[in-house]
Amino acid sequence: MEISYDENGLVPVVAQDALTGEVLMLAWANAEAMELTTSTGDLHLWSRSRSELWRKGDTSGQVQKVLSLRVDCDQDALLLDVEAGGDGKSCHTGRKSCFYRRVETHDGQRRLVFEP
Amino acid sequence: MEISYDENGLVPVVAQDALTGEVLMLAWANAEAMELTTSTGDLHLWSRSRSELWRKGDTSGQVQKVLSLRVDCDQDALLLDVEAGGDGKSCHTGRKSCFYRRVETHDGQRRLVFEP
Repeated sequence: MEISYDENGLVPVVAQDALTGEVLMLAWANAEAMELTTSTGDLHLWSRSRSELWRKGDTSGQVQKVLSLRVDCDQDALLLDVEAGGDGKSCHTGRKSCFYRRVETHDGQRRLVFEP
Repeated sequence: MEISYDENGLVPVVAQDALTGEVLMLAWANAEAMELTTSTGDLHLWSRSRSELWRKGDTSGQVQKVLSLRVDCDQDALLLDVEAGGDGKSCHTGRKSCFYRRVETHDGQRRLVFEP
């Protein structure tokens, strides 16, 4: 079974809370990160901003244990059930999910609304 | 509020069932698709394989009504609550979700297991 990586050698990874199904974040992995994720059980990623391989949670303690891994029809996207360690949060802003702002459009102008 | 598009002018879009939270698919949108999505309420996407803008469901009838739109911390990924029209499915293979196969690894070899 082959994962289809993009022209930069990356695949998008969607992590959801294994218990609640809440989508926590969208991140990126390369082949090496995927090898490390499957061999260790901890989510490894490729940081596009830092151009480096990292284990999610290495500095924050928010290591994500991967309980299941699904691939989509085109095999170019992954969906993971994870258990977040540390304080159980996933976002570097200190929130559980990275998707904490809703986009609303009024008169063609988009604005962001913080979710409770 | 600006969405951060990648070097190809695209942003990944994760659609989840508004009722159950089930992740249905990961697709891609450009700025024009996003304008059409917000102005019409129907999910519009950019097809990377066909290099064309399309309204999801135009041929299948599986139009997705977007009930809410969230953006992540880096503003380079979107999470949508959608209501799938037609037969309520999202995947071109005839399944509800595109993530219908689990990846299992045995002795370093990955294999795909179909979910029930």
